[in-house]
Amino acid sequence: VALLFYSEDDDPAAWGEALRRRLPDLDFRVWPEAGDPEDIDAALVWLPPSGMLAGLPRLKAVFSLAAGVDAMLRDPTLPDLPLCRMVDRSLTTTMGEYVLACVLWYHRSFDRYEAQQREARWQLHLPSPPEATVVGIMGMGELGAHVAGVLREQGFGVRGWSRTLKRVEGVTSFAGPEQLAEFLQPVGILVCLLPLTAETENMLDARLFGLLPRGARLIQVARGRHLVDEDLIAALNSGQLGHATLDVMRQEPLPERHPFWRHPQIRLTPHSASYSQPESGAEPVAENLRRLREGRPLLHVVDRRRGY
Amino acid sequence: VALLFYSEDDDPAAWGEALRRRLPDLDFRVWPEAGDPEDIDAALVWLPPSGMLAGLPRLKAVFSLAAGVDAMLRDPTLPDLPLCRMVDRSLTTTMGEYVLACVLWYHRSFDRYEAQQREARWQLHLPSPPEATVVGIMGMGELGAHVAGVLREQGFGVRGWSRTLKRVEGVTSFAGPEQLAEFLQPVGILVCLLPLTAETENMLDARLFGLLPRGARLIQVARGRHLVDEDLIAALNSGQLGHATLDVMRQEPLPERHPFWRHPQIRLTPHSASYSQPESGAEPVAENLRRLREGRPLLHVVDRRRGY
Repeated sequence: VALLFYSEDDDPAAWGEALRRRLPDLDFRVWPEAGDPEDIDAALVWLPPSGMLAGLPRLKAVFSLAAGVDAMLRDPTLPDLPLCRMVDRSLTTTMGEYVLACVLWYHRSFDRYEAQQREARWQLHLPSPPEATVVGIMGMGELGAHVAGVLREQGFGVRGWSRTLKRVEGVTSFAGPEQLAEFLQPVGILVCLLPLTAETENMLDARLFGLLPRGARLIQVARGRHLVDEDLIAALNSGQLGHATLDVMRQEPLPERHPFWRHPQIRLTPHSASYSQPESGAEPVAENLRRLREGRPLLHVVDRRRGY
Repeated sequence: VALLFYSEDDDPAAWGEALRRRLPDLDFRVWPEAGDPEDIDAALVWLPPSGMLAGLPRLKAVFSLAAGVDAMLRDPTLPDLPLCRMVDRSLTTTMGEYVLACVLWYHRSFDRYEAQQREARWQLHLPSPPEATVVGIMGMGELGAHVAGVLREQGFGVRGWSRTLKRVEGVTSFAGPEQLAEFLQPVGILVCLLPLTAETENMLDARLFGLLPRGARLIQVARGRHLVDEDLIAALNSGQLGHATLDVMRQEPLPERHPFWRHPQIRLTPHSASYSQPESGAEPVAENLRRLREGRPLLHVVDRRRGY
């Protein structure tokens, strides 16, 4: 089998090595050194250049390096072939690490100390015990439930909100628009892990921020279109929100002139919270390559109408 | 029993409440409202004003709010009475939280993203799995061993160095000056938790930084006098060190004109990494107050010659 790799964000050498350990006879090629396009059976890609996949006449399947394929589905040149999303343990564990890092950082007032450092001001903020820090998670799917468990293990108070009620051990659960205000009322740190749908688009807005306690912090690790950018800036400037960590933006890379870059209460990371590490992510890809070779049905094929 | 409280960094109301829950008849007074100095049997203090304790004629014991009493012992007006250091679970757990927050922050490249944000630069750094991040802990006493356990639980690679060899499960252990270079060689994040002694003073210097891999990060949570300030700045400027988080300084509060305040690769916190929370810290104090009332020997009395 010949597999063509493309990603600006992932390491081709590490993926090639991890895949060849599982499939020693794999013909692994890295764009643009694709060789004869007729050879290529499958592509392992993240946001390939428009038309790249359409130029592969014998392509049989496309494997996404990411779990969310909404951006790839927007490319009109994407061939009408099975598209498989990444399902991988490291997607979940890396998200857990990222959110834990941010929650501990806020819990121990590093955002306030950063502001004080700019003024050379020495002032202690007594840390409360972790159970007194209430973290609210919006979106209690696979990622949300894992993050809740990681935070519970560190002793934080955790509550979850989702469209339909999800029961997770040790987590106070809320569902639907009618319970949103009750959910948000004591939340000192809000984590957004919602899927992007018509209902959740623009959900992080002035009204929602107004339902949080004054000075709450935001960790936004879902999709840029959940957030109304101007409302975030207004909430930070008024003190309604204390600080925000944003890993996702409406436009990525974030344009250089966007005010988020220079806001002192915003910490930006370049969509780095969660992703697949070759060591664990190679296994589901290898399994699908075996299935492709043997003509068996592929796993994790996206339903294009639903979008996931 | 009448107890006089003094601290600029701790909340007298929370301590009074936590102590009175254990000793309902406690006469709890907060400096400067001490009432008749003749009444006071004991003092619960952190860095009291010089001479304050000497003005209490019937004082029988001094309880420190901190574990390290080196600063209090330097006060020549400290009365020659039993001085008890704080021994409290929350001292250890708060230190574990702080170091974990910093290690996760470095592991997930938040220091690099902070630097990139200043230049509006969007560039991803692939996170490695936690076992590939090697954290070195100098000082493997009670705090060091606890921190090692917290980091092990998150999957980090942990090695420890101390004066005499300490065996801690899952931690590669080194001891003495002759093993220092071997200990430091793969350490990407160095945590200083050493006691301050003649041998460890100024130990964090250019020579030691030169034994770390280029770009290593430092978490300094021990005592300001372990660190040669100018050597840290030189190592950051040359790129030998990538970033430093400092919770302790030679002079606290750090003077406003000190270059640490404004160095872009230094994160300062105001000696906030570890301390006693009233809820758990009140128990050992209450126990010593009971012992004082009943004439039994006090616990955790400092040996003034050793200094701890």
